[in-house]
Amino acid sequence: MERAIDTLIEDLKKMILLMGGHVEKSLAQATAALLSKDLSMFDGVHAIEKLVNEDHVKVDNACMQLLAKQGPVAKDLRLILSVIKINNDLERMGDQAVNISYTGKDYLGRRPIPAQLGDIQKMSEIAGRMVKGSLDSFVRGDIEQAKQILMMDDEVDHLKNKVFKDCLAHMKAHSEDVEAGLDLILIARNLERLGDHATNIAEDVIFAFTGKDVRHGGKFG
Amino acid sequence: MERAIDTLIEDLKKMILLMGGHVEKSLAQATAALLSKDLSMFDGVHAIEKLVNEDHVKVDNACMQLLAKQGPVAKDLRLILSVIKINNDLERMGDQAVNISYTGKDYLGRRPIPAQLGDIQKMSEIAGRMVKGSLDSFVRGDIEQAKQILMMDDEVDHLKNKVFKDCLAHMKAHSEDVEAGLDLILIARNLERLGDHATNIAEDVIFAFTGKDVRHGGKFG
Repeated sequence: MERAIDTLIEDLKKMILLMGGHVEKSLAQATAALLSKDLSMFDGVHAIEKLVNEDHVKVDNACMQLLAKQGPVAKDLRLILSVIKINNDLERMGDQAVNISYTGKDYLGRRPIPAQLGDIQKMSEIAGRMVKGSLDSFVRGDIEQAKQILMMDDEVDHLKNKVFKDCLAHMKAHSEDVEAGLDLILIARNLERLGDHATNIAEDVIFAFTGKDVRHGGKFG
Repeated sequence: MERAIDTLIEDLKKMILLMGGHVEKSLAQATAALLSKDLSMFDGVHAIEKLVNEDHVKVDNACMQLLAKQGPVAKDLRLILSVIKINNDLERMGDQAVNISYTGKDYLGRRPIPAQLGDIQKMSEIAGRMVKGSLDSFVRGDIEQAKQILMMDDEVDHLKNKVFKDCLAHMKAHSEDVEAGLDLILIARNLERLGDHATNIAEDVIFAFTGKDVRHGGKFG
C-alpha cells in the first residue's frame, strides 16, 4: 500500500531534478558563452539563476511542510534532510555559474589566452556530468553511481591544478595578460567548487540510502 | 512550564556556539600564521578543523534525533532547520580556514608582498566578527544584529576588491611575484567566502525568528 508520504517524497525528487536541470543549463550556458565569445549568452545565465533561486525556496518550503505534517522518521527523515542539503548545494552551484558568467564577461573584454580554454571546457563537461550523475544517483538511490561522482571530482581537481599552473606560467611570461590569466584561474576555481558541491550531494546520497556518513574521511564500501 | 524540546534546543544552541568558537579560532590562527610568518601555526588550523568536522557530525545527529523524537512544528521546526543550515555553513567556513592555511604555506615560501597584508588582516578581523556576531544573533534571536552582519559583508567585499586590484597591479609590475600575488588573491577570496557563509547564517537567523525569507533579494524590515 502506498503511503501519503511516498507521493510527497516523489514530488520532492521531481522538484530536485527540475532544479538540477536548471543548474546544468546555467553551467553549460556560462561555458558556451565563454567559448563562443558571445556576451549576450551570459544574460541567459542570470535568467536561469532566478529559476534556481525560486526552486530553492520552493524545495525548502516543501521539506518544511513535509516535516511538520508527516512527522517522518528513519529512512524518510534521512531522505528529507538530504534534500535540504542537496537543495543548498544546488543553489550554490547556481551561484558558481553566475560567478563564471561575471568573470567570463571580464575575460572576453581582454586579450584572450586561448590555450587554456580546452581544459576549462573539459572541467565544465565533467562538472556538468557530476551534477546530473549525483542527482540521478539520488533519485534512483544508486550508491555505486554516487561513488563514481566522488572519483570524477579528482579529475576536476587535476584539471584545475593544470589550469592554475599553465596560467601562472603564461602570466609570468606576458605581464600584459595577468588579468586575463587570473580570470581563467578564477573560472577554474568556480568549476572546482561546482564539482565539490556535486561531491557533497553524492555523500548525502550515500548517507540517505545507507545511513553511513562518508563525510570527513568516513569510509564506505 | 518548560517543554522537553526547549532543553534540547538549548543544547543545540550550545553545540553551535562551541562549533562557532572552533571556526573563529581556526580563522584567527590561519591569519596569525600568515602575518607572523610562523609555518608551524598552520598545523594548528588542521587540528582545529578536525574538531569542526566532529562538531558537524554531532550537530547533524542531534538535529535528526530531535526531528524524529519530538516532531517539532512551527517556530521550533524552523529553528532546527536553521541549525542544519548553520551547521553546514560553519563546516564550510572551517574548510575556508584550511584553504587559507594551505595557500598561506605556499605564500610564506615565496618573496613576500607585505603591502597587501594589512587589508588581508582587516578582512580576517571583520570575517571573525561576522562569525561571532551571526551566531550571537542566532542564540539570542537578535534580528537587528543579524541585519548588521549583512552590512559587514559589504566591507569584506570592498576589501577583497581592493586586494585583487592592488595585487594585480603588483603582479603586472613584478612578474617574478605572480605566484605570491595569486596566493594573496586566493586568500582574499577565501575570506570573502567566509563572510558569505556568515551572511547565510544571518539570513537563516532572520528566517528562523521571523519566518521571513530574505534570501535571493527578499526584503526585510
